[in-house]
Amino acid sequence: MASQDVHAKASAPGKNMLWGGRFTGGLDPLMVAYNESIYYDRAFYAEDIRGSIAWARANKNSGLLTEDEFSAIEKGFTQVHQEWQSNTFDIKPGVDEDIHTANERRLGEIIGTGIAGKLHTGRSRNEQVATDMRLWLREQLKQIEGYLVDLLKVVAARAEQDIEHVMPGYTHLQKAQPIRWSHWMLSYGLAFATDLQRLREVVKRVNRSPLGCGALAGNPFNIDRDAMAKELGFEELIYNSMAGVADRDFVVETMQWGSMLMLHMSRWAEDLIVYSSGEFCFVKLADAYSTGSSLMPQKKNPDSLELLREKSGRAFGQMAGLMMTIKGIPSTYNKDLQESVEPLLDHVKTVGDSIQIATGVLSTLVIQPQRMLAALTPDMLATDLADYLVRKGVPFRETHHISGRVVALAENEGTPMDKLTFEQLQGIDKRFEKDIEETFDYRKSVEMRSAKGGTSKSSVEEQIRVLKEMLAGQ
Amino acid sequence: MASQDVHAKASAPGKNMLWGGRFTGGLDPLMVAYNESIYYDRAFYAEDIRGSIAWARANKNSGLLTEDEFSAIEKGFTQVHQEWQSNTFDIKPGVDEDIHTANERRLGEIIGTGIAGKLHTGRSRNEQVATDMRLWLREQLKQIEGYLVDLLKVVAARAEQDIEHVMPGYTHLQKAQPIRWSHWMLSYGLAFATDLQRLREVVKRVNRSPLGCGALAGNPFNIDRDAMAKELGFEELIYNSMAGVADRDFVVETMQWGSMLMLHMSRWAEDLIVYSSGEFCFVKLADAYSTGSSLMPQKKNPDSLELLREKSGRAFGQMAGLMMTIKGIPSTYNKDLQESVEPLLDHVKTVGDSIQIATGVLSTLVIQPQRMLAALTPDMLATDLADYLVRKGVPFRETHHISGRVVALAENEGTPMDKLTFEQLQGIDKRFEKDIEETFDYRKSVEMRSAKGGTSKSSVEEQIRVLKEMLAGQ
Amino acid sequence: MASQDVHAKASAPGKNMLWGGRFTGGLDPLMVAYNESIYYDRAFYAEDIRGSIAWARANKNSGLLTEDEFSAIEKGFTQVHQEWQSNTFDIKPGVDEDIHTANERRLGEIIGTGIAGKLHTGRSRNEQVATDMRLWLREQLKQIEGYLVDLLKVVAARAEQDIEHVMPGYTHLQKAQPIRWSHWMLSYGLAFATDLQRLREVVKRVNRSPLGCGALAGNPFNIDRDAMAKELGFEELIYNSMAGVADRDFVVETMQWGSMLMLHMSRWAEDLIVYSSGEFCFVKLADAYSTGSSLMPQKKNPDSLELLREKSGRAFGQMAGLMMTIKGIPSTYNKDLQESVEPLLDHVKTVGDSIQIATGVLSTLVIQPQRMLAALTPDMLATDLADYLVRKGVPFRETHHISGRVVALAENEGTPMDKLTFEQLQGIDKRFEKDIEETFDYRKSVEMRSAKGGTSKSSVEEQIRVLKEMLAGQ
Amino acid sequence: MASQDVHAKASAPGKNMLWGGRFTGGLDPLMVAYNESIYYDRAFYAEDIRGSIAWARANKNSGLLTEDEFSAIEKGFTQVHQEWQSNTFDIKPGVDEDIHTANERRLGEIIGTGIAGKLHTGRSRNEQVATDMRLWLREQLKQIEGYLVDLLKVVAARAEQDIEHVMPGYTHLQKAQPIRWSHWMLSYGLAFATDLQRLREVVKRVNRSPLGCGALAGNPFNIDRDAMAKELGFEELIYNSMAGVADRDFVVETMQWGSMLMLHMSRWAEDLIVYSSGEFCFVKLADAYSTGSSLMPQKKNPDSLELLREKSGRAFGQMAGLMMTIKGIPSTYNKDLQESVEPLLDHVKTVGDSIQIATGVLSTLVIQPQRMLAALTPDMLATDLADYLVRKGVPFRETHHISGRVVALAENEGTPMDKLTFEQLQGIDKRFEKDIEETFDYRKSVEMRSAKGGTSKSSVEEQIRVLKEMLAGQ
Repeated sequence: MASQDVHAKASAPGKNMLWGGRFTGGLDPLMVAYNESIYYDRAFYAEDIRGSIAWARANKNSGLLTEDEFSAIEKGFTQVHQEWQSNTFDIKPGVDEDIHTANERRLGEIIGTGIAGKLHTGRSRNEQVATDMRLWLREQLKQIEGYLVDLLKVVAARAEQDIEHVMPGYTHLQKAQPIRWSHWMLSYGLAFATDLQRLREVVKRVNRSPLGCGALAGNPFNIDRDAMAKELGFEELIYNSMAGVADRDFVVETMQWGSMLMLHMSRWAEDLIVYSSGEFCFVKLADAYSTGSSLMPQKKNPDSLELLREKSGRAFGQMAGLMMTIKGIPSTYNKDLQESVEPLLDHVKTVGDSIQIATGVLSTLVIQPQRMLAALTPDMLATDLADYLVRKGVPFRETHHISGRVVALAENEGTPMDKLTFEQLQGIDKRFEKDIEETFDYRKSVEMRSAKGGTSKSSVEEQIRVLKEMLAGQ
Repeated sequence: MASQDVHAKASAPGKNMLWGGRFTGGLDPLMVAYNESIYYDRAFYAEDIRGSIAWARANKNSGLLTEDEFSAIEKGFTQVHQEWQSNTFDIKPGVDEDIHTANERRLGEIIGTGIAGKLHTGRSRNEQVATDMRLWLREQLKQIEGYLVDLLKVVAARAEQDIEHVMPGYTHLQKAQPIRWSHWMLSYGLAFATDLQRLREVVKRVNRSPLGCGALAGNPFNIDRDAMAKELGFEELIYNSMAGVADRDFVVETMQWGSMLMLHMSRWAEDLIVYSSGEFCFVKLADAYSTGSSLMPQKKNPDSLELLREKSGRAFGQMAGLMMTIKGIPSTYNKDLQESVEPLLDHVKTVGDSIQIATGVLSTLVIQPQRMLAALTPDMLATDLADYLVRKGVPFRETHHISGRVVALAENEGTPMDKLTFEQLQGIDKRFEKDIEETFDYRKSVEMRSAKGGTSKSSVEEQIRVLKEMLAGQ
Repeated sequence: MASQDVHAKASAPGKNMLWGGRFTGGLDPLMVAYNESIYYDRAFYAEDIRGSIAWARANKNSGLLTEDEFSAIEKGFTQVHQEWQSNTFDIKPGVDEDIHTANERRLGEIIGTGIAGKLHTGRSRNEQVATDMRLWLREQLKQIEGYLVDLLKVVAARAEQDIEHVMPGYTHLQKAQPIRWSHWMLSYGLAFATDLQRLREVVKRVNRSPLGCGALAGNPFNIDRDAMAKELGFEELIYNSMAGVADRDFVVETMQWGSMLMLHMSRWAEDLIVYSSGEFCFVKLADAYSTGSSLMPQKKNPDSLELLREKSGRAFGQMAGLMMTIKGIPSTYNKDLQESVEPLLDHVKTVGDSIQIATGVLSTLVIQPQRMLAALTPDMLATDLADYLVRKGVPFRETHHISGRVVALAENEGTPMDKLTFEQLQGIDKRFEKDIEETFDYRKSVEMRSAKGGTSKSSVEEQIRVLKEMLAGQ
Repeated sequence: MASQDVHAKASAPGKNMLWGGRFTGGLDPLMVAYNESIYYDRAFYAEDIRGSIAWARANKNSGLLTEDEFSAIEKGFTQVHQEWQSNTFDIKPGVDEDIHTANERRLGEIIGTGIAGKLHTGRSRNEQVATDMRLWLREQLKQIEGYLVDLLKVVAARAEQDIEHVMPGYTHLQKAQPIRWSHWMLSYGLAFATDLQRLREVVKRVNRSPLGCGALAGNPFNIDRDAMAKELGFEELIYNSMAGVADRDFVVETMQWGSMLMLHMSRWAEDLIVYSSGEFCFVKLADAYSTGSSLMPQKKNPDSLELLREKSGRAFGQMAGLMMTIKGIPSTYNKDLQESVEPLLDHVKTVGDSIQIATGVLSTLVIQPQRMLAALTPDMLATDLADYLVRKGVPFRETHHISGRVVALAENEGTPMDKLTFEQLQGIDKRFEKDIEETFDYRKSVEMRSAKGGTSKSSVEEQIRVLKEMLAGQ
């Protein structure tokens, strides 16, 4: 942000200039473009106007503006707002360097600069941009909250609906133990629900008012900051004017939040990409979320999931870049902070879109329960075999070894573990009894894990309850 | 984490092996070292023991262990704990690959493997390491909370004590408006107080119990997870067993928190480095926090501040690295998660030490009020000049221009702005009256900014009150 | 990249769909937008056409196209190219998902799909996009090379012109030893010259041809890859078809290069921001590269430098984000790779603009040699004092101590070191002789450092020679 | 790096101190620990000694030291070196803050401070640490070069040996086209070979001498920098003394290089993790590179690969953290640069170990050619089907459609594509002739792709030749 320069001696590159070039009339057109933010901070046009009206009202209340002047300003801004909305606002290149300048310029054209020139009294663009960004972001985050609640509702609904389906659970991408498909969905549901909880904390800190902080030192006309904050829906003030203009923590925190959520999204997508491979084939994406190949006619690619996975890197990069930018600056406002705007705009869009895409993918996903079942292998019950002996009183470390020998025998014989004869089992350990065969039951295995958070039906149902409470904000 | 391998056919690199090398008896010693975590996860020895006792007690209560077995385990662990504490625990290289294995191995030596072999019943190292890390981190974060409160108390005390000193406030590192030195301190105080608030939220999410989640599918002996959580001081359960072992969000969130705090620290240090340069000379660091040069005898360098600034990059790098690691894995436990431990240990130490160093620096810092005063220049009152005319009814945009011309005149004449004659001022604008000279008073300028969050004495005092409330958790 | 889907059963979200919403005719319009790249990969329109013509020519040479068909394709593309250039190409939303699809669609409209439908024979968009990106990037990097050479020429010219000016050199931002202003400029000149050297290496790896790699497995019509590479100006082939489509290393490497350069830029800007502060005041920026304040009439802010500093974070974030994206994917083409395009476009623009802005700033910068001189202080000669005694045969460690005591005496007495009496010096060490006073000469101090790379005039002149050789590529 | 402080007035925290605490005798023990680097920069002990001897020799040659003094220094250092080597060097805590101080302190004890005190004449630790790091890193990188060559030799040898095995090639993790297993290996081989090429460029820039740069301003005793560089094996000088001490680009560049290599490693590991899952089962890791589960007896986890994948994040985090640290500092030496050491030590170890582990994994990997073959599906030949018609003169776009309809028919009928009757094919398109059945041959499909870089045997053999040339540095 910058303004008309009042310095008399323009040091236009003259005859001593070492570098020829771009200059026309003391101006470097590339610098003008490098500096201006109007082409992206116009996103805040409505917030900028709303904040300006609140500002004018407060100045009216403290006697700096008359009732008439305030009315003119308010009315003028109504027109400016309409011009933006109807896409008829005419940006003056090289003049309207940012949204604040543009709005005030236009206001002056409509109501005259005599009154419009009073609007900025005691105000700085430093506090103005911080106010605009916070107002805008607050609304965006509320919208994202809604998207996230929608996603979680789909998770809960599918978890209820699909609760009977059993599939292999993996650790290290190796078959580990049988689980319910709903259990898998809820593992991410819980992560996303925690994102929701965190989001509600982040919004509180976004929703603090810097208005009245001035350029850095506060307001000299004793403006009523509380009244402005109330009008604009802020929950709290920022209680130090230097902090008010220096702080982009609310952007960093949003991006930290967003990139954490996107980590979950990426892992979720990765799982589903693997599950939709020909080798696994547990799920099929709806055509709406897949694409084909320009060369290979048979291909159906999980593009939506790959895009979700990719956007995680993008969201992270925005956070990383901004953190580096902020790290290297001294206190209060430095132009470097302008860099927070573009990444924020894209970050918020990326996260919001991604959640919606995920909701679409999950709600249209077709599962292949028979393939899930077929992928279960008897050796996934090796722990149940060990547990069987634990129940007979054998120390776990010993049972783990015994079960390991059963696995090895099955492997060496080329016989599935559940097809070993009773004699073969007894050959390994005499404590195996006839009831051992009951162990070879995937559904039973799943039901055995009935402690809280486990795979049994009741445990899964409890998880759904917990999830619903979390999304209700309880 | 790995264990004794039960697979029979060791594929030791034999005659077909393309690569000669390191192998001895089917083992690659570099792989052993690459894999083992004992040399850093030993940091969790106490938590690992505490968690194991809680585990044994729960298994006793559900009948898997007898009272005597439990007593033996508890007593054995007391000895193991003492060995670690007295630094006499003898790590077996190549055997004790991690703290869990080491503790159980030693327990077996003390109480016999017959009983010790029952400890791990129904348990996985996946849940164990997550439990250890969370217990350890919770305590560390509470300690850090204490450090942060100490720092904020010093900020508040100095802000009260030094409240009368006025200095230049900067934006873009250019002199902007006069402020109080206390106002500067409080601008960071507010940021650190917000870090404190965030920390209290992070701790809540750290303090959730994964114990009872098994390898991924939960516990088959209906273990009482609530009782274990209560014994270990956890506030809540993790309600999905896959999430319980997959989740390192608590580490990421801690690092996001820590690197946000370190951003504040870095900007604070940057300000003080600039302020302690010969050209600014507003502050002098205590010798305890400075160092000299091996070559230049006159040097006194602000090493403490530069180290604080550097540690911000380190803390960020740890977060960035872990986020990348987590991004690229599927659900549940993957060995990649082992990478969360070392960076976490260092991160927590870095942040904790840095806060304490900052407290030391700030509490021993000697300020140079005369240099601060001398650095104020009349043109820093240009806004006050404009405001003066605003109070005479001139629109701000016009007053901004008039004041700009006064600045230009002073610059061209080589006269400080406050030394221009009344006639010179009237030559620029007739509305300047005799009382204009009262404007050229830095202290008055500071007092004028009396709106909330501003530089007036009462505003600053209010900020101190707010800060104290925040650190009390109100 | 995706294409018309050949799968018959569109799994449009029907009555079983858990999530209502956006669907119209089995399509999720958000997914269409989320997926399409045309609005940014249109940047490659010329390269896409050029590559397609080379492709068609090769297929003609191997008999897959007739001479006439090839001519029609070439002519058709001439028209398509003109439409893009004249901004009359009409993108079909929802159809032209990427530049490849758009160009081929339009070609078909112009020359008929009978011939246009033969263009893509044996080709995949996977190889096509990689080819387009490499061609485009090669040209961009050559342009950036030119900008960098320009910057270095300004550095060299100013270093020659300003060679007589002496200023304080800093370590730890504390005054250290006198240096030449040109020496400071050349310290960055050397860094940028090394960037230039690295750039020339990067370009070589960018300029390798993936054309003929197919979707992943190569070309089944024995296409002449060497001929195509030659036509397109590629220096080398990529010798494995899977690598050819999987590889975005050339993008990562470009961004690593760019963010390294931007680190230099940021440190350079940081120095100049400090030097242009009121307290240092060594340099004044041209008005063209400064801006004022909307509130404070006296302000002149170094916005250009702050923007340069900020862009360093942006450039880094793009690299970090892409590296994270690439890290988490398996081999060959995954849709995630689409994410490399947007950041690349912005990265290249950011770096190119920044170099040009820096050139403008440096060539119009006004230095204040009197202020530089005035900032030199006698204690900066403490090392020279120690060196004086070294020349008298005193061990350095002892001279360092003696000099330290002189500094302390001056500090305690409040006397500049060069104003201490000869008796005071002798009081500290008898080995000081009358000629000690010659030591207190900044210019002499600078000239003393005449070893290669030092501050003496001849050393600086040698550096200028070296710099010129580096930019000539010697 | 700091030294004995010469400032007289120790500002020990006294009665005015706001913060009680850690102080003893004006020292903050935490600050001492926070500041000292000896516990990690001791890694450079040999380089530090070697550099000091070169330094002393140069000072002898310019007359600052006598022959005897030099001999004493050289001999003394031989003993210091032996003490480090035999692990008998006794670090003095709180005194030996860094390796430079420690070595000089010890030298003084051995040969007396009269002579040892002359060693540091004209030298600064700023140049010393830069020299040490560069010498150390150069040797490390040469070692890593050797590891990388070993890995590539295994790739080449296996590619030759396993050349007959055909497997599915994937894009988007969906079955795409048949490839050779060797082709897959070579796709990574090419990436690693490019890493090797880059490494050789990086080493050149590491291997430049900063010795003689002083603290920042160069050497006042006209030291012969070229002679020292030659003695130490440096290829070039750094031609500006400020750059010499400020520059950690050689560390950043090494880390950029290392994290790029680790990206390749991570993708390679990811592929193999997927290929070693139960569902794919294309490869089996040697037991030496796998581990079991503490709970699940049947598990065999690819821990080595997961560790390789994780280390990629670690390596990246180190680079990211250092870049952020460097970004935020002004020119020349700032204490922040100390942060480059620890991450560098770990980075180099991480990368070196990882390459060796990968070599071990690959050379002991057992492939399952039957499983690879079994995973091929007829629809992977859909492109060959389209190509068949292209050879009959049908435009590709049409053939793509026709082939798509064949795929759809097979899917709808539940018949593998190669089992459709000739009539069914003709029903879709009359241009199918009897010879179409020859298309359904995976090996033929692979051989068809005979253009350079393709999957045919001769193309793969050419790739092996190219790889061998690259590792020979041709």
